[in-house]
Amino acid sequence: MPLARIDVDASTSQEVRRKLSDIVYDAMATIAKVPVHDKFMIVSTHAPGDLVYPKEGYLGIEYTPGIVFIQITWNAGRTTDVKKAFYRKIADDIHEKTGIRKQDVFINLVDVSPENWSFGNGEMQYAPK
Amino acid sequence: MPLARIDVDASTSQEVRRKLSDIVYDAMATIAKVPVHDKFMIVSTHAPGDLVYPKEGYLGIEYTPGIVFIQITWNAGRTTDVKKAFYRKIADDIHEKTGIRKQDVFINLVDVSPENWSFGNGEMQYAPK
Amino acid sequence: MPLARIDVDASTSQEVRRKLSDIVYDAMATIAKVPVHDKFMIVSTHAPGDLVYPKEGYLGIEYTPGIVFIQITWNAGRTTDVKKAFYRKIADDIHEKTGIRKQDVFINLVDVSPENWSFGNGEMQYAPK
Repeated sequence: MPLARIDVDASTSQEVRRKLSDIVYDAMATIAKVPVHDKFMIVSTHAPGDLVYPKEGYLGIEYTPGIVFIQITWNAGRTTDVKKAFYRKIADDIHEKTGIRKQDVFINLVDVSPENWSFGNGEMQYAPK
Repeated sequence: MPLARIDVDASTSQEVRRKLSDIVYDAMATIAKVPVHDKFMIVSTHAPGDLVYPKEGYLGIEYTPGIVFIQITWNAGRTTDVKKAFYRKIADDIHEKTGIRKQDVFINLVDVSPENWSFGNGEMQYAPK
Repeated sequence: MPLARIDVDASTSQEVRRKLSDIVYDAMATIAKVPVHDKFMIVSTHAPGDLVYPKEGYLGIEYTPGIVFIQITWNAGRTTDVKKAFYRKIADDIHEKTGIRKQDVFINLVDVSPENWSFGNGEMQYAPK
């Protein structure tokens, strides 16, 4: 059910882009209890300057052109603790597996309702009983 | 008022991309009672591998690299039955008019408030009375 | 905290794209009281025909291929009056500083919760106390 948008600089290799989507899926499955195989993501690459971040930093965090934006639309209901652990795991794993700085991992969540999804075939798979 | 994002593989022709936006608009107008001419969409194309789906399938549905992601932000208030009919019509029409598999039509809705739109001119056209 | 997506035609120069993000940030800071340096945006460029708008216009507004889509995800809580002033300032400033028609400035807001953000480092910076 989550639909994740991952936006990176155009210089990011296909291998790293694939790793990013694998890492986000792994965090969704292990921390946020998203169903197995529920892995739907849209990766987009951008020209230099098109990923905009504050040159002065924000809240004490400094960013580089290697910033990675991850925006995930999913069903409402995850607790604050789950969201905290989710952010932590994504940033840790991205750093460990790709070398990208943890500071450059920006995450945003958008909560929706279960009936707001069709996973193909024109069906509402999460329809209320 | 809806703003639809349609994300497809870079090999998708301009003609098919145009058909996809026409089909989504038609379903919005006929099923979801969106006002006539309320047709605003952003189509994006992606390199191979950047549209991510589970190779194992999900909920019994198998996907191909021809997967089409449709994410629509619109005003809250549509019923479950309307959303069901909306998914059905989009998938059926896409298959009939472009040959894309129904299984490859992924749809997600994001509900917002009427005051969250400006359709140009710096105005809030749906402002509360 | 806002994450703004700005979608423009591929013919839009890098300088205008930079101006657009500066203008949106300025309106967020001065009108919507977003914290200073909270400037995170994703600019995307699109092939001709991929920014879809009604050829007949909508609500009396006519559009051109130079249409600019601005979709901002931010924390819920802004009043209708703030949103109105926000739309006004963005459209006015875009026209004044880039020459883009005010009619071609389309804006949509998506409201989320404070715990739905990580600004880097794997932390939930806006966690409830």
